[in-house]
Amino acid sequence: MSQHPFEAFREKRKQANERVLETEHLGIKRFFGIDSACYRDGALSGKTKELLGLVASMVLRCNDCIDYHLEQYVQAGYSNAELEDAMNVALVVGGSIVIPHMRHARMSLDFLLAERDGGTHVESEA
Amino acid sequence: MSQHPFEAFREKRKQANERVLETEHLGIKRFFGIDSACYRDGALSGKTKELLGLVASMVLRCNDCIDYHLEQYVQAGYSNAELEDAMNVALVVGGSIVIPHMRHARMSLDFLLAERDGGTHVESEA
Amino acid sequence: MSQHPFEAFREKRKQANERVLETEHLGIKRFFGIDSACYRDGALSGKTKELLGLVASMVLRCNDCIDYHLEQYVQAGYSNAELEDAMNVALVVGGSIVIPHMRHARMSLDFLLAERDGGTHVESEA
Amino acid sequence: MSQHPFEAFREKRKQANERVLETEHLGIKRFFGIDSACYRDGALSGKTKELLGLVASMVLRCNDCIDYHLEQYVQAGYSNAELEDAMNVALVVGGSIVIPHMRHARMSLDFLLAERDGGTHVESEA
Amino acid sequence: MSQHPFEAFREKRKQANERVLETEHLGIKRFFGIDSACYRDGALSGKTKELLGLVASMVLRCNDCIDYHLEQYVQAGYSNAELEDAMNVALVVGGSIVIPHMRHARMSLDFLLAERDGGTHVESEA
Amino acid sequence: MSQHPFEAFREKRKQANERVLETEHLGIKRFFGIDSACYRDGALSGKTKELLGLVASMVLRCNDCIDYHLEQYVQAGYSNAELEDAMNVALVVGGSIVIPHMRHARMSLDFLLAERDGGTHVESEA
Repeated sequence: MSQHPFEAFREKRKQANERVLETEHLGIKRFFGIDSACYRDGALSGKTKELLGLVASMVLRCNDCIDYHLEQYVQAGYSNAELEDAMNVALVVGGSIVIPHMRHARMSLDFLLAERDGGTHVESEA
Repeated sequence: MSQHPFEAFREKRKQANERVLETEHLGIKRFFGIDSACYRDGALSGKTKELLGLVASMVLRCNDCIDYHLEQYVQAGYSNAELEDAMNVALVVGGSIVIPHMRHARMSLDFLLAERDGGTHVESEA
Repeated sequence: MSQHPFEAFREKRKQANERVLETEHLGIKRFFGIDSACYRDGALSGKTKELLGLVASMVLRCNDCIDYHLEQYVQAGYSNAELEDAMNVALVVGGSIVIPHMRHARMSLDFLLAERDGGTHVESEA
Repeated sequence: MSQHPFEAFREKRKQANERVLETEHLGIKRFFGIDSACYRDGALSGKTKELLGLVASMVLRCNDCIDYHLEQYVQAGYSNAELEDAMNVALVVGGSIVIPHMRHARMSLDFLLAERDGGTHVESEA
Repeated sequence: MSQHPFEAFREKRKQANERVLETEHLGIKRFFGIDSACYRDGALSGKTKELLGLVASMVLRCNDCIDYHLEQYVQAGYSNAELEDAMNVALVVGGSIVIPHMRHARMSLDFLLAERDGGTHVESEA
Repeated sequence: MSQHPFEAFREKRKQANERVLETEHLGIKRFFGIDSACYRDGALSGKTKELLGLVASMVLRCNDCIDYHLEQYVQAGYSNAELEDAMNVALVVGGSIVIPHMRHARMSLDFLLAERDGGTHVESEA
């Protein structure tokens, strides 16, 4: 059975991240550190901050970033309806140029929700 | 006593918005409609969605949009600490190019918190 | 015979759009509505507005949007020379960072013009 | 009588452009050359290409560029309705982040149309 | 004698930066730390990296960032010709949308070079 | 033995560039001319200007442009450490949204350094 595009993304991302972090450049290592840190629980919950990261990724139009945040959200227990409500903000702020990323996000989300909740999920939720 | 820059922004924004909406172009009117609608309570609360709008405005680096959302948040009862936590996500996602907008947001926020909570606010909160 | 990349794009776009529009989120549906509406004949012809959409897509550097608008233009009867003149404006406004999208647009356009006018088109037009 | 912001922009722009072009850097001079050239009549009319430049300037959110193109259009005889129809495309493609530039454009346009057609213009047109 | 716009920028920037850094948010403090660190001498000289920061600021179109980097460069001893050669790369990569920032940079640079080298600088250099 | 993604990029880029330059549109030809010219030795060395182009490409997030500049740098004799120091500036200025392009650059750079210096390069350098 062939690999889903999302699984291919996960694998490639993991490999390349590990390779980037083999660097001896302290600045690069520190940047990755503050990137992880900023989504931890603080004055706002980590869950809310992942949602901020998703919307930022959508208006800046980065599919890899969208996929990464979607995976975190689905694991954090967000529902499809909450994610669509957040994506709608991104769509209105960022305009129709965001639509291709909306399509991409929908396809990734279908995969992630089915993976979490089981294969019959998509039809009943939409 | 001279006008604070935030008050000047408010006035100019109001005037120009009214002028734009005198248009007979249906598409423009409808766009303003969906813009207002997307921050209303839905699967996510309006308060959370204003925070999404703030972060989107910061990474897209639009001071007028930042000021507009900050005003909504402060009225919605967000604390300074929650707003800083959200702005930190914008800073990490968007990079140092966001810093001038962070400065702008800080100055606006000081004005808005003082206006809401009274003039001794800024020192005790920071 | 294998599928041209443009045909693969068309198919994937159609499927994902349909999936996005299965949503019950009214805001998302309305956004897709105003997106279609804005290219209809108005004070400017729909044909002119598709050209505005193409240039906007190029300076914002979105290949999927470029492909979508190119398809509309070619169907609307624009010539290769008119499209190149529009793309040149995008190149000058947006800079050399637009060049990879210029290459993408050229390859898509060759496919679309050949599809419309027949296979010997490209050589004689260039 | 005080100077309108648009008149201040015109003056400052002219001075700074002249200063930039005192350069001996051939690349900079050549870039300014191709910038002027791309709006001349070609396969598309210069008038149409100014409209492409306006929409590109709006989605890239540059007020100085918007003002420059608006001035060219108004001189080229575009009506208010045609300009609004073009700006609506920019709004839909670029999203609500374009709204502050829409407000700016409206204020500039009111000045330019009044300057061209006389002072009672704005009320009757809107 | 009235204040030059560059001097006003310096003062306002300093005040707002100090205010931002009164925060207790660790993430914000750390981000400002890595921002300063990345321009220190490393595999590349700090002087070269300031030039990288300038070009990045121009293509991302941030006048405050441009002004900050120009000040660092002029202090680091770059000549007007070297700065123009760097700005030309930004112009070609970023396109005509960078031109207003080129004008801004030229005016700032004239001030900074005159401040460093004395008031007759601008005419002889250009 | 299958083709490396970088080799596929090189080939596709070359073909499409040749196709674009078959155009009779003078503006497009001239733009490609000033694009090549801006990286030649001038007040700054061509080698330094390629580094400016790389950082501009990273903050504007264009993988094809990154790959093109990386190839030039590696040929110009830059070391891995110098390239990482430049990429770190791009990361700090542009934020975490640049990380996917950092991963892409790392993979391309590994290929290019191995091609230049031989296959055992990557492990010893990192």
